[in-house]
Amino acid sequence: MSLDFKHIRAFTFDIDGVMTDGGILADLEGNLYRTFDAKDGFAVRMACMKGYPVGVLTGGRSQSIRNRFRTNGIAPEDIYLGSRDKMADFADFCRRHGLSPDEVMYFGDDVPDIGVLLAAGIGVCPSDAAEEARQAADVISSRPGGKGVVREYMEKVMKERGDWEFDVALYKKMF
Amino acid sequence: MSLDFKHIRAFTFDIDGVMTDGGILADLEGNLYRTFDAKDGFAVRMACMKGYPVGVLTGGRSQSIRNRFRTNGIAPEDIYLGSRDKMADFADFCRRHGLSPDEVMYFGDDVPDIGVLLAAGIGVCPSDAAEEARQAADVISSRPGGKGVVREYMEKVMKERGDWEFDVALYKKMF
Amino acid sequence: MSLDFKHIRAFTFDIDGVMTDGGILADLEGNLYRTFDAKDGFAVRMACMKGYPVGVLTGGRSQSIRNRFRTNGIAPEDIYLGSRDKMADFADFCRRHGLSPDEVMYFGDDVPDIGVLLAAGIGVCPSDAAEEARQAADVISSRPGGKGVVREYMEKVMKERGDWEFDVALYKKMF
Amino acid sequence: MSLDFKHIRAFTFDIDGVMTDGGILADLEGNLYRTFDAKDGFAVRMACMKGYPVGVLTGGRSQSIRNRFRTNGIAPEDIYLGSRDKMADFADFCRRHGLSPDEVMYFGDDVPDIGVLLAAGIGVCPSDAAEEARQAADVISSRPGGKGVVREYMEKVMKERGDWEFDVALYKKMF
Repeated sequence: MSLDFKHIRAFTFDIDGVMTDGGILADLEGNLYRTFDAKDGFAVRMACMKGYPVGVLTGGRSQSIRNRFRTNGIAPEDIYLGSRDKMADFADFCRRHGLSPDEVMYFGDDVPDIGVLLAAGIGVCPSDAAEEARQAADVISSRPGGKGVVREYMEKVMKERGDWEFDVALYKKMF
Repeated sequence: MSLDFKHIRAFTFDIDGVMTDGGILADLEGNLYRTFDAKDGFAVRMACMKGYPVGVLTGGRSQSIRNRFRTNGIAPEDIYLGSRDKMADFADFCRRHGLSPDEVMYFGDDVPDIGVLLAAGIGVCPSDAAEEARQAADVISSRPGGKGVVREYMEKVMKERGDWEFDVALYKKMF
Repeated sequence: MSLDFKHIRAFTFDIDGVMTDGGILADLEGNLYRTFDAKDGFAVRMACMKGYPVGVLTGGRSQSIRNRFRTNGIAPEDIYLGSRDKMADFADFCRRHGLSPDEVMYFGDDVPDIGVLLAAGIGVCPSDAAEEARQAADVISSRPGGKGVVREYMEKVMKERGDWEFDVALYKKMF
Repeated sequence: MSLDFKHIRAFTFDIDGVMTDGGILADLEGNLYRTFDAKDGFAVRMACMKGYPVGVLTGGRSQSIRNRFRTNGIAPEDIYLGSRDKMADFADFCRRHGLSPDEVMYFGDDVPDIGVLLAAGIGVCPSDAAEEARQAADVISSRPGGKGVVREYMEKVMKERGDWEFDVALYKKMF
């Protein structure tokens, strides 16, 4: 079965193990810090410039996640921190944006992501995802988490839809 | 000799080189920071949800270790910081929980872990453990420290015992 | 076509994915931190000791980038933070230093770098650069971003020009 | 020519690219942070417990380096920060401890280390050292910087000399 990347109109993703390699740096007070990838960030900016809704569904609670992705153009209300029931949050994201789940791509890597990987139009997981997530996904990337998985498939969708054109003037205006 | 994973009722582990890749970030005041793995963290949460005692035996003294694992459900008294004599701390953990050492899995990677690797029911070490630790362990993972070693074998035990079921409602309640 | 490394009189580079592996650590307030490579830093110092103009063209806005490279000898005005139109900033760098673009080496890895990779005398990209950047570059290093790409080709130019001599007395005086 | 590891009575090392993978994290104020390896740290502790002089010769100036290695047992005066002329500092270390240079092992990875790699009894470099450092070294480890190079050869010396015995009581007393 060949996947219909052109049908995708929005992007959603988990953070740990997807937008990162799974590493979480802990400070003395218990605050947690993540390391994000610049090329993933550029893909998110491209999507936001082209008007795609982009959402984050993460169990993490750190405001650093919200701050990171706001500067990439994601609206604050589309960043679901502390998500314990990802299916409910995914449904909320779809409803607010008037999207059918099969129009949305989701990137996830572990057990709590299984439901959304199955519900989304195209579920993508990194090469080092948990076995159950790999079974639930439509696509398994050749890249591990944090090494451009999100970039790879966001770029693929936007290229197939003719949206991967870099506009310097718009870029200067938005970021 | 095949190992009896079903017999394991509790988990204990070292931090540096096991729950991390051995990297320790030093700040100007001499505080030390570690980077933990999200999938390991999820396995600890699953174990705590299912009622397994989980303990930490580390030479490290940073409160960041305690804070990190409290949010994963480990009780403060089960986190032995600054452990210099790991055999004594392992014995204390077993006694407090009414466990025989052979019911406990231990993950370690270096010389100070040898005694506990030998004493525990199943001793596990990462692929990049020190030679002496590899000799003392019952199992050598194919994964290096910090890349899911703990997840791999905690998941294996819980799957064999029928405890690897994800309950969203309980997850929301506990974390 | 063999490249004329001897013709290069100045160096310019992007930061994320070039001087780093693309990883960006986010703190709670939204500040971003990068990890730089010591051997790249030594090459920058060598170039500054030998009098080569060295410039930074980065979309990043963190003062940490400016502070990092000032200590390696780069003049503050040669560090273009928040660069959205890299061609304009590259032209400014060349004009200020009285350089023709074909005398300048540029290191870049992603879509916003394409113009400068094409305009520079020698455009270099890491092995893990975006496909479009790889096509625009004159040289694709065997090294990924953050693992000595900049060192490799700065050293190559300086060796061909006879400038890779380490002078302890000058080093002590300048750094 | 076989190397005489038994003849070594003291250890000295560079930091960046040797005790680390070369990565330097920069904060907003220009402070620099390194990530050290736990197994390397354990080897330093073993050497200090057995009475070997251990020295650090680094171009880095961060107090974090001093703090890191003091907790591993290195005397503050044996930590040469901001070293620009490593030969002079190496000579000072030898003189203060009454050592001949050929009794001292040195670990280095880049151009400023060449003199000391040649002068020391045994010069060791990581697999990813600069070409000139590799040529100057007596031994090239199979490990890259920050991944146990120092541990590998400190352990080798101490094992050949019969000093690699772990004494829990002494460990508790010293650390």
